[in-house]
Amino acid sequence: MPGSVQSVERAAAILRLLAEDAEPVALSRIAETLGLAKGTAHGLLQTLVSVGFAEQAPQSTGYRIAPALFRLGASRIDLNELRSRAINWTDALAARSGAATRVVAYRDGRVVTVHDVFRPDGPATVTTDDSEVPLHTTALGKILLAHDPGAYRSIDAINLDSLTFHTITNRVQLDRELARVRDEGWATEVDECEPDRAAIAAPIRDKGGSVVAAVGVHGRPEQICDTRGRPRQVLIAHVVRAGRSISRELGHGRSR
Amino acid sequence: MPGSVQSVERAAAILRLLAEDAEPVALSRIAETLGLAKGTAHGLLQTLVSVGFAEQAPQSTGYRIAPALFRLGASRIDLNELRSRAINWTDALAARSGAATRVVAYRDGRVVTVHDVFRPDGPATVTTDDSEVPLHTTALGKILLAHDPGAYRSIDAINLDSLTFHTITNRVQLDRELARVRDEGWATEVDECEPDRAAIAAPIRDKGGSVVAAVGVHGRPEQICDTRGRPRQVLIAHVVRAGRSISRELGHGRSR
Repeated sequence: MPGSVQSVERAAAILRLLAEDAEPVALSRIAETLGLAKGTAHGLLQTLVSVGFAEQAPQSTGYRIAPALFRLGASRIDLNELRSRAINWTDALAARSGAATRVVAYRDGRVVTVHDVFRPDGPATVTTDDSEVPLHTTALGKILLAHDPGAYRSIDAINLDSLTFHTITNRVQLDRELARVRDEGWATEVDECEPDRAAIAAPIRDKGGSVVAAVGVHGRPEQICDTRGRPRQVLIAHVVRAGRSISRELGHGRSR
Repeated sequence: MPGSVQSVERAAAILRLLAEDAEPVALSRIAETLGLAKGTAHGLLQTLVSVGFAEQAPQSTGYRIAPALFRLGASRIDLNELRSRAINWTDALAARSGAATRVVAYRDGRVVTVHDVFRPDGPATVTTDDSEVPLHTTALGKILLAHDPGAYRSIDAINLDSLTFHTITNRVQLDRELARVRDEGWATEVDECEPDRAAIAAPIRDKGGSVVAAVGVHGRPEQICDTRGRPRQVLIAHVVRAGRSISRELGHGRSR
């Protein structure tokens, strides 16, 4: 079946071409670069779009690699397994921090709450569900944006909506914040998704080291932050340690 | 061209199937799962292998996703650009640390030295070139192993050769070390690739946050380590800061 082999080869060449370019690539340039008739290139691109490996960039006629292709390399952890492995550490984190704790994952284009520990004695005012608000407004969401290319892609072309006066709505500021999250290994949020709520979050890694979920604490700012309004160091340490413990449960650092 | 469309769709389905399974998948299972004739499945797999998207796992007849596919999502930074952007920070790191400094990247299956600053007043005994020794024996190599799935895959099925009495040759121990490198954000090596050499390394990230290279210092253990034989905190801080500065030069934290 030399015919079908050729079309797979050509589809692969298109993907490589798209991957090499930071900007979306126009159909005419794809056809020209690979020496294909425009109709042939178009048919292959349509197929790549239909299988979710390529996409048309918003506000552009060009094509680029789609998030599904990033995820091929990443393992897809079972959320029930994640929940059962996270549960003890999350409960311990709640006990140690005295704060409500939550584990979320990014799955099929949205944030999924995997486990939730309420603070029994806590005030009922902190109500926001992290899975219901935009990723850029929460500490857990920032962990996912910093480490999951698919998650970042999902906010690529949209406006960063403001939920409070403190939501980060400026792309430059958000990208700087996400770089800090990667460098430091934790994220924070103060009054950004809801007034009078603060949070700290850390990554959860799978066996291969990919970030597959996030764990965090949330509560009133006076509970999460010190007197200067910065997240308490001791809480950061608790959250980071919980993330590493859950990661270890998932096989991170254990032999593959 | 419905024929070629179909073969691209089938190739994509094969890749998804391989991606979902942590273990290599046998040809017969691929054919059965996707409802394909064995010959058809074999032809598609051969094509996917030839374009570098799938591979036969060593010591197995099964197929799995190949590293080239992981890299499609990752940007491929130009090494000359990396060199020109790293040069000032690497020189400053050498001046500040008083140690030899080096920048390496993992490219096409091997470690490439991108920039090298010798220590003019240093002893000539530290001679090992990081690009000439196995990845698991050096601090720079451990950064690449921890963050580049293709680099890790390259040592997946091979014995961890011993270059000194201190080389990590145990896979369990290496995986634990690489998890620590991801968690802490830096790597070290003491007498592991060469007796009487120690090193500290940190990641360099591109615009999108992917680790694309590593920067580090190396020298005699008494220069790199404290009296207890642990890497000096002040040197770790210098190296990590150099990695972040070079990352910033590459666009990490600047708006995409």
